[in-house]
Amino acid sequence: MDAVRVIEVKKSIFESNDREAERLRKQNREKGVFLLNLMSSPGSGKTSVLLRTIELLKDDLRIGVMEADIDSDVDAKRIAQTGVKAIELHTGGMCHLDAGMTERGLKELNCDDLDIAVLENVGNLVCPAEFDTGAEKNVMILSVPEGDDKPLKYPLMFQVCAAVLINKIDVLPYFDFDMDKCIENIKMRNPGISIFPVSAKTGEGLEKWADWLRVQHKHLT
Amino acid sequence: MDAVRVIEVKKSIFESNDREAERLRKQNREKGVFLLNLMSSPGSGKTSVLLRTIELLKDDLRIGVMEADIDSDVDAKRIAQTGVKAIELHTGGMCHLDAGMTERGLKELNCDDLDIAVLENVGNLVCPAEFDTGAEKNVMILSVPEGDDKPLKYPLMFQVCAAVLINKIDVLPYFDFDMDKCIENIKMRNPGISIFPVSAKTGEGLEKWADWLRVQHKHLT
Repeated sequence: MDAVRVIEVKKSIFESNDREAERLRKQNREKGVFLLNLMSSPGSGKTSVLLRTIELLKDDLRIGVMEADIDSDVDAKRIAQTGVKAIELHTGGMCHLDAGMTERGLKELNCDDLDIAVLENVGNLVCPAEFDTGAEKNVMILSVPEGDDKPLKYPLMFQVCAAVLINKIDVLPYFDFDMDKCIENIKMRNPGISIFPVSAKTGEGLEKWADWLRVQHKHLT
Repeated sequence: MDAVRVIEVKKSIFESNDREAERLRKQNREKGVFLLNLMSSPGSGKTSVLLRTIELLKDDLRIGVMEADIDSDVDAKRIAQTGVKAIELHTGGMCHLDAGMTERGLKELNCDDLDIAVLENVGNLVCPAEFDTGAEKNVMILSVPEGDDKPLKYPLMFQVCAAVLINKIDVLPYFDFDMDKCIENIKMRNPGISIFPVSAKTGEGLEKWADWLRVQHKHLT
């Protein structure tokens, strides 16, 4: 009995969320706001990548960032220091963001005068992949120390993303990480995905990623 | 209306899971099986730590391992090569294990002749912390590349664990990771927690962790 009720309710959450997400996506397109949903494991370097990305783009594009975290406001403070708009979204223990939570965040961010709004999702490779936030594109960061086998273990995350950044390539010599194998594993899950090997520490590879974002924003408007 | 229904159902899942977990814990104590729930982010080295732990303990203790994964059986194969009992639990997209799933795993593992049964939970720092699996003790692995600020961001995970292994200390020179700060952050969340800095690559620190497990098993019986 319990099991049946759970499935029903989950279904209704997903369906209603999908509708909300579609509406939010349409609304942002009309406003010319490119909403990016950035996902990864804890500690893969989402905030450091964002800081570098902001440096590369902030002279041409107006950027705002929503930092989703279960607790702490460490990341939002780091982002705010770059001078771009940043807010913290505390999820209250929730493991992902949905379209409703994202929309509330966008209102707080007052996104109407932005070109790119970035949602830094909760550090988690499972649940965030299941919930459409209403973003125009999903992107994930996989970091070298996590291992080249992650696309085998977390298939949905790689399937829902338009691009993946392979971060921390500066430490490649110290890890048993096969870049070719990793790319093969990613392509197996999602043949059309764009892949950017980068280092948020040295800045390597991030120009190409910033160019990809420019193109995405241009295509929107 | 939707929101209210969700909360009710979640509550009933948690309550019924807590009862199941308590029953399973009692049952395992009576059998003398120490059930360990091992949690971490994706890629922190759970399987590598387990392989080293098995080497250190397998002459004295009978060990069995349940590898929970959304997909793939890579880890279970690696464990099985050590000669200990190993099974793979595919969660079908689920982001955590509950007591019912753990009990089904233990039956498959045929745990009655085991001293230690290890549940390698899904790589995720959020949801697994919320569900009691019925384990005698929860332990987590945090790895150096993930950063020393993770206890600030994922408080519940650190609160529910009896011990934390800080893995990949071999790469400490290449990361901006402050061990003292990390330990301070962990103790802030959970003052009584045992902390073991280790390297699954070199074996450093793992003897003390293995001794901790011996003591846990001894106290059970």
